[in-house]
Amino acid sequence: MAQENVKLLGVLGSPFVCRVQIALKLKGVEYEFVAQDLQNKSEELLKYNPIHKKVPVLVHNEKPINESLVIVEYIDEAWKGKSILPTDPYQRALARFWAKFIDDKVFGAAWKSIFTIDENEREKNVKEAQKAFQFLEDELKGKFFGGEKFGFVDIAAVYITFWIPMLQEIAGLELLTNEKFPKLCKWNQEFLSEPTIKESLPPRDPIFAFFKGLYEKIRASAK
Amino acid sequence: MAQENVKLLGVLGSPFVCRVQIALKLKGVEYEFVAQDLQNKSEELLKYNPIHKKVPVLVHNEKPINESLVIVEYIDEAWKGKSILPTDPYQRALARFWAKFIDDKVFGAAWKSIFTIDENEREKNVKEAQKAFQFLEDELKGKFFGGEKFGFVDIAAVYITFWIPMLQEIAGLELLTNEKFPKLCKWNQEFLSEPTIKESLPPRDPIFAFFKGLYEKIRASAK
Repeated sequence: MAQENVKLLGVLGSPFVCRVQIALKLKGVEYEFVAQDLQNKSEELLKYNPIHKKVPVLVHNEKPINESLVIVEYIDEAWKGKSILPTDPYQRALARFWAKFIDDKVFGAAWKSIFTIDENEREKNVKEAQKAFQFLEDELKGKFFGGEKFGFVDIAAVYITFWIPMLQEIAGLELLTNEKFPKLCKWNQEFLSEPTIKESLPPRDPIFAFFKGLYEKIRASAK
Repeated sequence: MAQENVKLLGVLGSPFVCRVQIALKLKGVEYEFVAQDLQNKSEELLKYNPIHKKVPVLVHNEKPINESLVIVEYIDEAWKGKSILPTDPYQRALARFWAKFIDDKVFGAAWKSIFTIDENEREKNVKEAQKAFQFLEDELKGKFFGGEKFGFVDIAAVYITFWIPMLQEIAGLELLTNEKFPKLCKWNQEFLSEPTIKESLPPRDPIFAFFKGLYEKIRASAK
């Protein structure tokens, strides 16, 4: 395509934005990262995502696409190069199923495991998150969810590789451990050692500091 | 494909199951409908959907696919014939965005508008559902969301055409009215008059009776 204009409206440290960054990197798409302040939303964000007013938003030749998994599928279909989803319809359906599973069952439960103050509530969420991890552990049959190469489900699951270990360290919580989930932890290491992934992740220190601050603020406000 | 074996595990009266029935009908796929009792889940359901234990499940030559929108996309990719999603990547992304919007923003809010007892809470949900309807009203530019022919978003939205008018009648509620949402109501009529849709919808009377019973039970239990 001639005269490509690709912008990504995002914030550093969002796993949803990171999914899109990995997909763009994998396809070798050059783009401009337009950092957003979610406390003070820009006119550009409100124009391109008037419904949810959230990031990530991919803007391709002035046409906006919202929702991280929708964007990743769009990138796979709009640009040639390494493919993100498999080609076989049944394998594609499985990939979409597991990506949705991660959104529905992992994100919320893991987040609440970390940030819930009430101990009983927290324990309930830990169990829920670990139940979801167990399904993923059982599903993981090769090096990656996508097989020998990482794909749609792996990209959807970036939260588990980078964010969850950091958040459980902050909270002093044993959520995802090698003893309980050896295959998931091995996958985690394999995924993080991929050059495409390494180059797409945010810098750990400022993100760690941000979430540590958030964690302490939430704990303090409950006292 | 030779020796096709297609089964749909479902219940009558579920809009999620109905999505799959419409897609199969549109493609002209013959299948066996295997009715499920969700109060007493069958071994077949637990085998084919061990994670969510829900319907619909499509079983194609012994391979199960779960999650209604994932199934509809699978049907579109696995069988030739009339297409459900558009072919252009950007239009495909928009279709996926709006289908997800319906799942995330319409289902829960509309359901709670009908079945919530607390008046304030109910009012809040009515507002939320109508806010979502307004976005759909504004998005509707042609005869269907898919343009001149109905497609992925229309199928995803079957809940709005068949279930919502019935549920609001049961609850004596004005949720989706011609005054507030003329385009959506016109689309509703167009959609329901399509032969493929008519032949895929459940019979109204028993479904009406079922939801009326449920409504009265919930109201009575709150007294």
